Amino acid sequence: MEKTPELMEKLVSLCKRRGFIFQSSEIYGGINGFWDYGPYGTAMKRAIEKLWWNEMVESRPNVEGLDSTIISNPKVWKASGHIDKFGDMMTDCKDCKSRHRVDQMEDPSVCPNCKSKNLTEPREFNLMMKTFVGPVFDEEHAAYLRAETCQPIFVDFHQVRIATRQKLPFGIAQVGKAFRNEVNPRNFTFRSREFTQMEMEFFCSDENAMEWYEFWKDARKKYYLEKLRFNEDELKFHEHDKLAHYAKAAVDIEFKFPFGWGELEGVHHRGTWDMSRHQEFSGENMEYLDQDNNNRKYLPTVIETSVGLDRTFLAMLCHAYDEEMVGTQKEGQKEDIRVVLRFPAQIAPVQAAVLPLSKKLSGDAEKVYDQICPFFRSEFDVTGSIGKRYRRQDEIGTPFCVTFDFDSQEDNAVTVRHRDSMSQDRVPIAELNAYLAKAIMS
Amino acid sequence: MEKTPELMEKLVSLCKRRGFIFQSSEIYGGINGFWDYGPYGTAMKRAIEKLWWNEMVESRPNVEGLDSTIISNPKVWKASGHIDKFGDMMTDCKDCKSRHRVDQMEDPSVCPNCKSKNLTEPREFNLMMKTFVGPVFDEEHAAYLRAETCQPIFVDFHQVRIATRQKLPFGIAQVGKAFRNEVNPRNFTFRSREFTQMEMEFFCSDENAMEWYEFWKDARKKYYLEKLRFNEDELKFHEHDKLAHYAKAAVDIEFKFPFGWGELEGVHHRGTWDMSRHQEFSGENMEYLDQDNNNRKYLPTVIETSVGLDRTFLAMLCHAYDEEMVGTQKEGQKEDIRVVLRFPAQIAPVQAAVLPLSKKLSGDAEKVYDQICPFFRSEFDVTGSIGKRYRRQDEIGTPFCVTFDFDSQEDNAVTVRHRDSMSQDRVPIAELNAYLAKAIMS
Repeated sequence: MEKTPELMEKLVSLCKRRGFIFQSSEIYGGINGFWDYGPYGTAMKRAIEKLWWNEMVESRPNVEGLDSTIISNPKVWKASGHIDKFGDMMTDCKDCKSRHRVDQMEDPSVCPNCKSKNLTEPREFNLMMKTFVGPVFDEEHAAYLRAETCQPIFVDFHQVRIATRQKLPFGIAQVGKAFRNEVNPRNFTFRSREFTQMEMEFFCSDENAMEWYEFWKDARKKYYLEKLRFNEDELKFHEHDKLAHYAKAAVDIEFKFPFGWGELEGVHHRGTWDMSRHQEFSGENMEYLDQDNNNRKYLPTVIETSVGLDRTFLAMLCHAYDEEMVGTQKEGQKEDIRVVLRFPAQIAPVQAAVLPLSKKLSGDAEKVYDQICPFFRSEFDVTGSIGKRYRRQDEIGTPFCVTFDFDSQEDNAVTVRHRDSMSQDRVPIAELNAYLAKAIMS
Repeated sequence: MEKTPELMEKLVSLCKRRGFIFQSSEIYGGINGFWDYGPYGTAMKRAIEKLWWNEMVESRPNVEGLDSTIISNPKVWKASGHIDKFGDMMTDCKDCKSRHRVDQMEDPSVCPNCKSKNLTEPREFNLMMKTFVGPVFDEEHAAYLRAETCQPIFVDFHQVRIATRQKLPFGIAQVGKAFRNEVNPRNFTFRSREFTQMEMEFFCSDENAMEWYEFWKDARKKYYLEKLRFNEDELKFHEHDKLAHYAKAAVDIEFKFPFGWGELEGVHHRGTWDMSRHQEFSGENMEYLDQDNNNRKYLPTVIETSVGLDRTFLAMLCHAYDEEMVGTQKEGQKEDIRVVLRFPAQIAPVQAAVLPLSKKLSGDAEKVYDQICPFFRSEFDVTGSIGKRYRRQDEIGTPFCVTFDFDSQEDNAVTVRHRDSMSQDRVPIAELNAYLAKAIMS
């Protein structure tokens, strides 16, 4: 589908209607910048996370997993620089009272809302969300919700290294919530205030850091093309010219959203910045003793790959949404629009739907459902015409519909209908699990 | 093992040493009540969560998943009663300056620390963690970190019901972080300030609510005995005599920890309390239209099953820890202590370790590792004597060690050593995956 603003509207509406994503606390009027994942959304979010975890942790002997707390000792965020300098420059319009991020204004001297030039001096707003730990709500007890999942990885580096006996180079990865008090949350789940990150920090010596940077850049490109199956022309690999003060090299992996190109992931050569800061602020020695290299001691250099899970999810929706004209079964009507989400089978919220052709067949069809349910994300649907049920499954991206018909009782076989081609295979029930397993992985 | 306080000390030490669990932000002196899961802990925590999710959501057509935000509209917590009344009565000792929860003091008139009677009047401390959303940090912008994962389930009830076309009775489940500003976090991860809950709220009509209460009570008991494999005498099912104001019936599933009996899960008949409160505070109609029952309209009754994931994890450690005297291979020494974590294979952090008998065999042994790694949580270890490596795996609860020896190159088979019995099977490499899959599920 062409990535027009209308596509975005259609997606938001489909997401709400089919229970992928909706506003948090909607019955209370919602809360700006917070989104809940409904049943299908939750299944798919978990599947995307699992795919990443398997790709980045479980299948790599040189990457370890971590699951740190959202709230940590506030000194972590002092060291990282987030408390002192992690904000946006903001200006208020004195006329219409609207507030704007200066870096997003086309003309920073004019209110984008009412075109007034009566603006306040730009001020910095910190994006860290603050809370209090302990019985008294004062500055002494202030703590912060993590603004990124990577800082606890740096802080726990030695704990993980010693427990696992890993030697450099090796990585530590984690998935989890992060929070940013964005002034203008927007573009659906693209910029929200509570979101899930999937980050991997790879620790190595400075000498081969550029090689590892290239390695991860390539590995991550491949992941988007081969595992998530985005198209080449949906992705852009944008090398930074202007680098953050700590970075030695950085590339953004961008996706072509309906609202423009947006970052899915950053691959960053962070040098020894993080480890030197935590060494300075904690007073602990963060150096690595390289026993394979003349007992040389040095601060590890970090190559980071940092993914937004919600953004991956949103990109997948944009990539997968399609409409096509198909024949209709109703008389007098020749064509009909079929809405279909072309998700890879590995991350589709429902991988196989079991549909008895008639309610009379429900009992036997349920046995087929019970047979596949422990192995695949499955659904059983008996309501409405078979055509209507196919469309319902197309719309949530179910790659395989398993139809149990009157012949099934005779031949112990079912019809498997493929979402994209709409082609159908007759498959013996005894071979169905193997058939689906193969089809999902292919 | 007998559940003595020494067991607790041994577990905490093992958890830190082997990277299961350690203090959050330790290099900064930690932060009281916050714990990070290291590599093995993360793998096992994910496995426990997956087991629960599969048991409660994926295998049940009448339970839907949800993934709501941690921060929601603050009115949610006004309606739930948490803002006004969710706290502990606390007293301060004027002499030694210590602070205590009144309900935990054996004698509420005497400081348990210094035995002084010079105590302040008990005051209530709210356990909700507060933050601010938006540009100004004032009461108007106050929001809260959820104190339990169930409230957003009640709030999203109709959204989920409409999107999934579920009819009563059906359930909604979610796993996620919750936060409580506990005054005295203690007993390792048992009472911490940031923790993970796994909750399922089952919506039904009042008429058959008691039947469903019994159903879930039985289902959950069975889960602990059959899936997590706790022993009968480690568990206690404590029916409440005194009920919370909203509850109609309640049972705690308690585990025998080294520090005493502690709640793992609560199964609660919450009546229509939650739905009536959210109806009152939101002004939205929270009733269900029962089309199968004369279009009767009523507020759903809720049966809740609420599990602490961190507590399940901790109980599993206590259950699994064992020490036994075994023969040693060293001359002059007859016996040796073997520390072993007897985890069920489905949740063990490492399910199979591939161990080449000699470094010379590493290349071929790695091929075996590559063969099993995509399907099982696997580790490759070549460092130290084979006996030492077995012990290392025993200590983290690895159920199967796969040893590649010099014969393996000839007969294309490996030795699989079972953690608990220490018995060994010779298994053809071509059949290893099937062998492990069967052994893990049995």
